[in-house]
Amino acid sequence: MVERLVVIGGDAAGMSAASQARRRRPADDLEIIALERSGWVSYSACGEPYYVAGYVEPLERLVARTPEQFARMDIEVRTRCEAAAVDLDRRLVAVTDLASGGRTELGFDTLMIGTGARPIRPAIDGAHLSGVYGLHTLDDAAALRTAADRGPGNAVVVGGGYVGLEAAEAFHSRGWKVTVLTSGRAVLDRTLDPDLGAQVVEAMERMGIRVVTETRVRCINGADRVESVGCEGETHPAEVVVLGLGFRPESSLAAEAGIGLGPTGAVAVDDRQRTDAEGVWAGGDCAEAAHLLTGRPVNFHLGTVANKAGRVAGINIGGGDAHFPGVLGTAITKICDLEIASTGLRPTDAAAAGFDAAVGDAQGTTAAGYWPTAAPMTIRVTAERSGGRILGAQVVGGPGAGKRIDVFATAIWNRMTAEDLAWADLAYAPPFSGVWDLIHIAARRAAAQTT
Amino acid sequence: MVERLVVIGGDAAGMSAASQARRRRPADDLEIIALERSGWVSYSACGEPYYVAGYVEPLERLVARTPEQFARMDIEVRTRCEAAAVDLDRRLVAVTDLASGGRTELGFDTLMIGTGARPIRPAIDGAHLSGVYGLHTLDDAAALRTAADRGPGNAVVVGGGYVGLEAAEAFHSRGWKVTVLTSGRAVLDRTLDPDLGAQVVEAMERMGIRVVTETRVRCINGADRVESVGCEGETHPAEVVVLGLGFRPESSLAAEAGIGLGPTGAVAVDDRQRTDAEGVWAGGDCAEAAHLLTGRPVNFHLGTVANKAGRVAGINIGGGDAHFPGVLGTAITKICDLEIASTGLRPTDAAAAGFDAAVGDAQGTTAAGYWPTAAPMTIRVTAERSGGRILGAQVVGGPGAGKRIDVFATAIWNRMTAEDLAWADLAYAPPFSGVWDLIHIAARRAAAQTT
Repeated sequence: MVERLVVIGGDAAGMSAASQARRRRPADDLEIIALERSGWVSYSACGEPYYVAGYVEPLERLVARTPEQFARMDIEVRTRCEAAAVDLDRRLVAVTDLASGGRTELGFDTLMIGTGARPIRPAIDGAHLSGVYGLHTLDDAAALRTAADRGPGNAVVVGGGYVGLEAAEAFHSRGWKVTVLTSGRAVLDRTLDPDLGAQVVEAMERMGIRVVTETRVRCINGADRVESVGCEGETHPAEVVVLGLGFRPESSLAAEAGIGLGPTGAVAVDDRQRTDAEGVWAGGDCAEAAHLLTGRPVNFHLGTVANKAGRVAGINIGGGDAHFPGVLGTAITKICDLEIASTGLRPTDAAAAGFDAAVGDAQGTTAAGYWPTAAPMTIRVTAERSGGRILGAQVVGGPGAGKRIDVFATAIWNRMTAEDLAWADLAYAPPFSGVWDLIHIAARRAAAQTT
Repeated sequence: MVERLVVIGGDAAGMSAASQARRRRPADDLEIIALERSGWVSYSACGEPYYVAGYVEPLERLVARTPEQFARMDIEVRTRCEAAAVDLDRRLVAVTDLASGGRTELGFDTLMIGTGARPIRPAIDGAHLSGVYGLHTLDDAAALRTAADRGPGNAVVVGGGYVGLEAAEAFHSRGWKVTVLTSGRAVLDRTLDPDLGAQVVEAMERMGIRVVTETRVRCINGADRVESVGCEGETHPAEVVVLGLGFRPESSLAAEAGIGLGPTGAVAVDDRQRTDAEGVWAGGDCAEAAHLLTGRPVNFHLGTVANKAGRVAGINIGGGDAHFPGVLGTAITKICDLEIASTGLRPTDAAAAGFDAAVGDAQGTTAAGYWPTAAPMTIRVTAERSGGRILGAQVVGGPGAGKRIDVFATAIWNRMTAEDLAWADLAYAPPFSGVWDLIHIAARRAAAQTT
């Protein structure tokens, strides 16, 4: 008997699961049907700002694999099809064909939920005016690019997270006058300490992007189209508003089916990506993952996590035995001339999680001090005061700075101490670092604060 | 009673030791005198090719700390002073003042030997002609720069190691016609597999540097000045010849004093940098270090090793307790548009050391595939077949490739398996990598070959 796997959501988690399951089980053993409400599957949301900027062309470049390519792997993708409800007892998904409006039922033996996340929309007047955009799906990216093409003009970005800042830079690069509004003390305040976030603000302002911190958006003004954004004490003219206020897990379909959610509001899963419902798996932005340091469930919206979770689910659905190893929240971006990255727990996160945290800070350069293009770089290391285990790191600096975070991620993965990292045999040549990498120096300073 | 530490050799190992000893013991407890036969101390030999290229200016930029700066730390530096002999019984160093030719004796309680390495000179006719250069000391760099300034013309580099290739690129950047001659199958053959070395050869030839592999230099021709380099079957015209044939440990002073050498011909030390003579320490290019994977003594000539060894010796001389952690030989360079790095054992090295080695190879790009400046990158991982522990890695690729080696160095440091690294939470954004970094993919492929 051929079993059927239905995948709900055709991006990273869902399609990774589908691919891995197919590698292990041929079509005469497992039929695979993926439902995706947009017209696209398996695309890079992280690449969208660069399409808006005109740096990556055309939009299709952001698609890793098309429905046709999946078809050649015997994976059937049904785009513009939305899973409206799941009936666990009857093993049926109610599917709405968004083109025709028609409703059908699709039986499944195994279900993979990869419904992703939905952008947070502010509960203020004008948020639905024409000219107000999000940046999440490829359709969003196409719409925002069209808007950018109509400029230049005034663009206001609401939110100081990764997506907001990348969108701000995209519009700036297209000649727009850009203002970023954030309630935070600086930008990137979910992953960077405020003094490091302030370095990013400085870099943006140096480039000509205005950043207004610690402000609240009161309303978006306009009759038909947006005209301005109203904050406390100031109104910012805008022909385009980009909302970058973060995401919530899209877990309502699962919840309505009776599948258990965790404390974060995302679908609860074990380390094999199983939900509490028999034969139902989940992963990616809609699901939780265990934090490697705290062991607690978290809900990070990262492509890396989604791909790993989908891979784990797919291997297991395919009859293998894979375990999600845990997550540190390692993330990186490039804003103006700065690379920004973080992993694990900041000092404040560590304290909140119950760790007695020591901190090591180092300022230096991305290359040998005498190297003509050496750029400033700051590394901050969080370590456990007792024993010195590394708990986190933040890096802000010029070209070459950002991917240094991977050394810290690998160190944390291995429960390495700051003292041990301070002696590690890292590579040196003048174009790349000082003879002691700033990683060593920051680790040494953290180690000096530990016992 | 004030004790006296005499440091022989004023570069990385010696001056690191001096600095660390001084931090722990004030001048009224420990007098520190460093002897250096050149006019320079504490300089970056790795930066010299970039001075020759005219990219770094002036020569003094390569000096990390001057004798005057050391004097302010109560460390006396005597430049142009050569240690001619060490009498361990009488605790005396015979010192030749190279300016005056005068000979004096200097007593010591504690001795730190950091005599470095000496370049290998070929035993062929003409190797001492005018126009034939090495590239080791700052004086070498100054002489080679003067020669480069007289050009352009024809430059021949003998040797395909780091120094040779960096010198070749320097002359090429100054408009010279450059030929590299090497006996190896490719270049960088001590750290790269031949097929990866061939990628470097290709990059150099694309840029207009000629590379002749598997050749032997028979003679250097010329009456007064060099005119050409004779190889099997071909003679290469040359106004400048740069010899880059590697280095031997400068351990003769120690050997003549009766201090024990190890199997590599370098000074034998324990993990606190002690030699077999009471109160005599050594480190850097003249000394051995334990390989972290094989446990065997090796003699790598790397600034990173010298600085660590000197630091360990200095902490211990200062009354602390530091241990050299072992070495992987992690190294990196930039040749033309390629970044090249390696750590640990290549498959052949691993086999020679008695490991049953599995190999994982991955070709990809330095950034997301759709990123306009994404450049090709190759990563090769060596792993132990049984158990999957990572033993080494090689990376060759465009900007951003090289420092990825630090992830492998950190992984090996922690005895991480390839399978474990294949799941690690590394950073992703389109300017930096695919959602699975090529590190993951290479590690996964290595893991697939292990049991």
